[in-house]
Amino acid sequence: MRVLGIDPGSISTGFGIVDRQGSALKSVCHGNISPGRNLPLTGRLLAISASLKEVLEAYRPDAVSMESVFFAKNAKSAIVLGQARGAALLTVANYGVPVFEYSPTVIKLSVTGFGLAAKEDVQKMVRLLLKDNGIAGKSDATDALAIAICHISSSKSLAVKGEASRLTLRRPV
Amino acid sequence: MRVLGIDPGSISTGFGIVDRQGSALKSVCHGNISPGRNLPLTGRLLAISASLKEVLEAYRPDAVSMESVFFAKNAKSAIVLGQARGAALLTVANYGVPVFEYSPTVIKLSVTGFGLAAKEDVQKMVRLLLKDNGIAGKSDATDALAIAICHISSSKSLAVKGEASRLTLRRPV
Repeated sequence: MRVLGIDPGSISTGFGIVDRQGSALKSVCHGNISPGRNLPLTGRLLAISASLKEVLEAYRPDAVSMESVFFAKNAKSAIVLGQARGAALLTVANYGVPVFEYSPTVIKLSVTGFGLAAKEDVQKMVRLLLKDNGIAGKSDATDALAIAICHISSSKSLAVKGEASRLTLRRPV
Repeated sequence: MRVLGIDPGSISTGFGIVDRQGSALKSVCHGNISPGRNLPLTGRLLAISASLKEVLEAYRPDAVSMESVFFAKNAKSAIVLGQARGAALLTVANYGVPVFEYSPTVIKLSVTGFGLAAKEDVQKMVRLLLKDNGIAGKSDATDALAIAICHISSSKSLAVKGEASRLTLRRPV
């Protein structure tokens, strides 16, 4: 099972691919898409889309995992974030890869065992779970890896707990 | 000069194409893209993109005009709107058509001569300017035609006023 986690933003979009090999997790690749701040909005959306296309074509993930967003500093930043999300979602949808959304609490819970864990603890656990100390501390790519891990561990627990938990844990979009 | 106005939304995305022929305006086509409410988010974004692609390929507009958005009821609705905008912008950008954004006040001003005009008055003026009583009263398509007219009239006035007004009136995105 290969999952692409995406953490979209108009300034920086993190992505990370995690493989499940038996009960082990393996980091396949991760990175940040950072279109130039001077690019017009359409140029930034094109850059996000083009980079995600490259990742989708090179690594062919089975699923995409994203964080659900219901809060933002203000309407303007919510619209800016929504635009980056829309461009990412449309790009993934064009490849027919299913997308799953998880709340921040569920992501923290599945990575650290604690739904209110600090960002730093989530990122430490990402490095531990993937046995990869090379993964940067604070970065959108590390967040994206956490989002990918969440889908894998939810899928594992769902296989045990059965379909009933499906709606509370994950939301296909 | 042929302009495609787009008024994006996840439930209904209005579009309308207006031609400038000398000093006259002509409505070329308009409509609403309404993906089924039961479709998942990715399905709705794909539907918006597919319909806009059809319009772009059939009518080859010289420019796309959109309303700038800085306010929303809440963060959730701003993100939902942003996602539809992002999908629309990415689709247009893939065709290399330049996109221009206008504030609601500038759109009302350019269509009715009054920046605080009521929505109904804007829509009446759209029918008058396009000499087409068949255009529906309240619809996203009519709003999209108003947004297209705004780009045309701004371009006309800019040609007279010169480049200095450019930044205050329109914003390429």
